[in-house]
Amino acid sequence: MLNKAILLIFDGLGDRPIKDFGGLTPLEYAKTPNFDKIAENAECGFMNALGRGLRPGSDTSHLAILGYDPDVYYSGRGPIEVAGIGLQLKHGDVALRGNMGTIDENMVIIDRRAGRILDVSPLTKELDGMEVDGVKFIIKPGTAHRAGVIMRGENLSSAITDADPHELNVPLHTVEPTDDSPEAKRTADVLNKFIKQSYEILKDLEFNKKRAEEDKYEANCLLVRGAGQYKHVPSFKERYGLSASCIAGGGLYKGIGAFLGMEIVDVPGATALPNTDIKAKFKTAKEKLKSHDFIFVHVKAADSLGEDGNPEDKKDFLEKADKAAAVLSDLPEDVLLVISADHSTPCELKNHSADPVPIVFKGGSVRIDDVTAFGERACAKGGLGFIEGRHVMPQILNLMGRLQLIGA
Amino acid sequence: MLNKAILLIFDGLGDRPIKDFGGLTPLEYAKTPNFDKIAENAECGFMNALGRGLRPGSDTSHLAILGYDPDVYYSGRGPIEVAGIGLQLKHGDVALRGNMGTIDENMVIIDRRAGRILDVSPLTKELDGMEVDGVKFIIKPGTAHRAGVIMRGENLSSAITDADPHELNVPLHTVEPTDDSPEAKRTADVLNKFIKQSYEILKDLEFNKKRAEEDKYEANCLLVRGAGQYKHVPSFKERYGLSASCIAGGGLYKGIGAFLGMEIVDVPGATALPNTDIKAKFKTAKEKLKSHDFIFVHVKAADSLGEDGNPEDKKDFLEKADKAAAVLSDLPEDVLLVISADHSTPCELKNHSADPVPIVFKGGSVRIDDVTAFGERACAKGGLGFIEGRHVMPQILNLMGRLQLIGA
Repeated sequence: MLNKAILLIFDGLGDRPIKDFGGLTPLEYAKTPNFDKIAENAECGFMNALGRGLRPGSDTSHLAILGYDPDVYYSGRGPIEVAGIGLQLKHGDVALRGNMGTIDENMVIIDRRAGRILDVSPLTKELDGMEVDGVKFIIKPGTAHRAGVIMRGENLSSAITDADPHELNVPLHTVEPTDDSPEAKRTADVLNKFIKQSYEILKDLEFNKKRAEEDKYEANCLLVRGAGQYKHVPSFKERYGLSASCIAGGGLYKGIGAFLGMEIVDVPGATALPNTDIKAKFKTAKEKLKSHDFIFVHVKAADSLGEDGNPEDKKDFLEKADKAAAVLSDLPEDVLLVISADHSTPCELKNHSADPVPIVFKGGSVRIDDVTAFGERACAKGGLGFIEGRHVMPQILNLMGRLQLIGA
Repeated sequence: MLNKAILLIFDGLGDRPIKDFGGLTPLEYAKTPNFDKIAENAECGFMNALGRGLRPGSDTSHLAILGYDPDVYYSGRGPIEVAGIGLQLKHGDVALRGNMGTIDENMVIIDRRAGRILDVSPLTKELDGMEVDGVKFIIKPGTAHRAGVIMRGENLSSAITDADPHELNVPLHTVEPTDDSPEAKRTADVLNKFIKQSYEILKDLEFNKKRAEEDKYEANCLLVRGAGQYKHVPSFKERYGLSASCIAGGGLYKGIGAFLGMEIVDVPGATALPNTDIKAKFKTAKEKLKSHDFIFVHVKAADSLGEDGNPEDKKDFLEKADKAAAVLSDLPEDVLLVISADHSTPCELKNHSADPVPIVFKGGSVRIDDVTAFGERACAKGGLGFIEGRHVMPQILNLMGRLQLIGA
């Protein structure tokens, strides 16, 4: 019987045929003997995290796969990002994610990440605690150029647009309400005032004058986006009775773990970049099995390399991941190993797509099928058939003998 | 064209890999040439009665497979069990299933089935017709230790917990309301009084004194559970225009048939145990085709053997069933034969699971696929793919040319 589980998500793993690879995908073309051996001893299938024909975001796909219906628990990226940097939302709060960026005196975007500035804490501490029209702004640094923002006050709403225009050489957007409620209008107004006031503060800081002298982009604007409201989210432990640990390099994925009340493990060398120490993450996952029932491991770079349109490096990264996966070849008998992805990131699209991704369930209780390779088309012939993200946790719980009976 | 159908449900048929069977399931390991031949001439698929990742009860799964959405027609096991022993519910009634069990003077459970007593009619007749606070108790014997209970009166509700604790050496549970309604509170109060009063009656009966003298467990307590309320349920004939006959050994399954207005056929030798006369049931099914359009045949024992954790006997029973299936090899041309299960009962779990089960549709109109064996993994590759229980009756009606047109 299976008692513990590792869920391993390779972000953006799936892809489309690459001409230079003879029409194979990067995963199909990559030499992945360890993954193939796992697939050979597993029940395989293919999956779209949100369902057929839906193109998943990174946040919604992870919520769905972890069994939290995005329609119920998701109201924007903000609450997840701020959870990831250790902030706790209260009822009525609106949360946003932000980048420290660079704008000119006409509020036109020069750089969305202030030259990929590495630490924004000298800037966020100048803004943290500001009040505008009775709304308090709680602002904390994230990794590198990132920051989390909580708006705390009466009558706020997350039904607002982004200030961040997501492109260069255009003016900062004015935040607009997206519904007719007075709360949305008020929130947009307060946020626009805050952005103006914070620009006035940031542009005159010694810190930025020094950056200008060093010919670095000044970090003079907090580009906010992804407003979301507080929602009550039962923890993973409450929901499933499983103590859970999250091993991820990327802030969003730590955020997902924190949002669901998982322990967040910092693994040295886990960078969310192609240089990440995957082996260290897998080793940590095995260690964590001693203290936790469920280990969520996130590996980011295949997604980024897909977004770069770089099949060669995506393939190389997957081969590196496969080598690291040797660490997982001697898992204890009572451990279920699930490997999949949140979505495809086809190199030709340089973005997420709705193409299904492979999924494998390996462990003593599964009905091993005749799939012998870990790849999109190989796993599509697996015993599970097509599933959605919302089916993953029930299948894990089913194999662990932990599902509720419906009826009698 | 297909005019008639036999739906054959092997309860708890599906399983997980068994080490001693070389990683095959009991069904895959069993020698089943007759079933395999049927699968070879059928369209196959795999199914979860309630849907992916849902763990079906025996009652809800059968309702779903027979096309009665449990969310609409199911309110607990009681109404089905009492239908099975020939009682008719009226609007407002609450029905419960019961066991005659044995408790000590502190109301602690000694045996949940009074030593598997074979006939409880001498006991139920002492309780039948009792009135408590204006609520009449209608109590009839079921098979062996079982009894059906109807509470008839004003302002009753099935939102109550079980008195049966489902385990030994613990006190009988006090029935509690599960919602805030005065009806639920009243129903719980009345039922608790009834249980106490009936214990006082039962414990002093000559019948029980004699059992005590013979060193048998006294049948001194009616352990009730599975409260459900009257709901209007259209009969199978009303719903589909098909006259239906139910051939089952187990009380619940006769109950399902009766609940849906099917004719209930008593087949001598149909015991719902491994010793059951499967051939007699199949022969009766063929006979019944002369007078009825739809024959529901239920075979229980694979489920019980899975619950016992006994793969060897489960395999043997399926081989016995296969031999009996020779009887079905010469069905008339216009008869559709559907073989499946309500759910898996993996031996390692000793309980129902959400693992899908195989399903086959054999008959002149089906698109025969290339599956050649009746097994979990073989049928998962079939032409139907993955279906849910609610798709079974539509597919039967479709093949019979009886489906309603949607649109024009």
